[in-house]
Amino acid sequence: MKIAVLGTGAVGKTIGSALIRLGHEVKMGSRTNGNEKALAWVAANGINASEGTFAEAAAFGEVIFVATKGEFTLDALRAAGNANLAGKVLTDISNPLDFSKGMPPSLFICNTDSLGEQIQAAFPDAKVVKTLNIVNCEVMVNAGKSSAADRGTMFVSGNDADAKQSVIRNFLTPWGWNDVIDLGDISTARGTEMLLPLWVRTWVATGNGHFSFKVVR
Amino acid sequence: MKIAVLGTGAVGKTIGSALIRLGHEVKMGSRTNGNEKALAWVAANGINASEGTFAEAAAFGEVIFVATKGEFTLDALRAAGNANLAGKVLTDISNPLDFSKGMPPSLFICNTDSLGEQIQAAFPDAKVVKTLNIVNCEVMVNAGKSSAADRGTMFVSGNDADAKQSVIRNFLTPWGWNDVIDLGDISTARGTEMLLPLWVRTWVATGNGHFSFKVVR
Repeated sequence: MKIAVLGTGAVGKTIGSALIRLGHEVKMGSRTNGNEKALAWVAANGINASEGTFAEAAAFGEVIFVATKGEFTLDALRAAGNANLAGKVLTDISNPLDFSKGMPPSLFICNTDSLGEQIQAAFPDAKVVKTLNIVNCEVMVNAGKSSAADRGTMFVSGNDADAKQSVIRNFLTPWGWNDVIDLGDISTARGTEMLLPLWVRTWVATGNGHFSFKVVR
Repeated sequence: MKIAVLGTGAVGKTIGSALIRLGHEVKMGSRTNGNEKALAWVAANGINASEGTFAEAAAFGEVIFVATKGEFTLDALRAAGNANLAGKVLTDISNPLDFSKGMPPSLFICNTDSLGEQIQAAFPDAKVVKTLNIVNCEVMVNAGKSSAADRGTMFVSGNDADAKQSVIRNFLTPWGWNDVIDLGDISTARGTEMLLPLWVRTWVATGNGHFSFKVVR
């Protein structure tokens, strides 16, 4: 499958490389062509890796992953362009983290709205699926990374049931997420985005960022 | 130990009865003496159970559990009186849930503040420990209630390390919580309170309220 990954940070690079390992063709998008970090990622990931602007990447992708910092997510998607997103599965793994007041971060959207909802509202023709945002990027692509024998639970939120099922089948399952809960429509992204403050504090308290949350039931 | 449980709802009754089963003397507090629900609870729980006003219960208790609805928590504690709380471990298991706009609830405090912090600020001489607020009341007092063999993780937040340890030793451990993470000071209550939206949505999605969250690490 041809996939766009928007964002050249640790999350974008990790997701992009994991998609390449699954056999996909991946174009990494950033603000400009020839972004240094994107070029380095392409060089390290072989012939199925390429890079370009947000618009070029989104035009290329049959599926879009948005892996920017949350504060840049809507800008990146506007640069990608509505026409390049319409009708496609838009997998949003970003979080509305506000580091402007230092650590620990707060959220710049929460409680009665979410970044996932704002994306869906801004791009009503895209099929937004919020998922993977509740673990660090290495755990995103390897749920078995946790040292415990069992694995955490992954959640999906989105208005399009088929889009959610395709994300589960094509990405979550191969990455080891064998316990997935479909929370419902995109407004349920409030729940997973609001888990971030507990994620951060658990990371600080345990000194370990390689964890996930399991719903024991 | 003599313990006050403030609140006569399902949470207060369940916590109160579980404390009785651990061998404690429990006085259930409510706005007025002779509250019908409190009297029924006393009648069902034997000679170690009693009831009274918030102030009478707090005066009686060496340890206080506040188990009211979040919107009434600060009022209940003001009625209990600063002098009856000072120097005591105040275990806050309430949540700032706002049902005024219907289901699912939002939070009336969140992100840059928490109910736990507001309680500690209003009663600086009490030793506030936020815990147990992330599961339903039956799971609070029986972590093994979950059908899975493993158990969830419980978090504690509070400024007084000894108070947190006493809550773990006296209550969390006997109730089956064998994986406890001390998140740090009371500001970390933001993290567990902000888990509630995900709790509610998981409950709706699975039709099962008997679950807990485990940090798989």
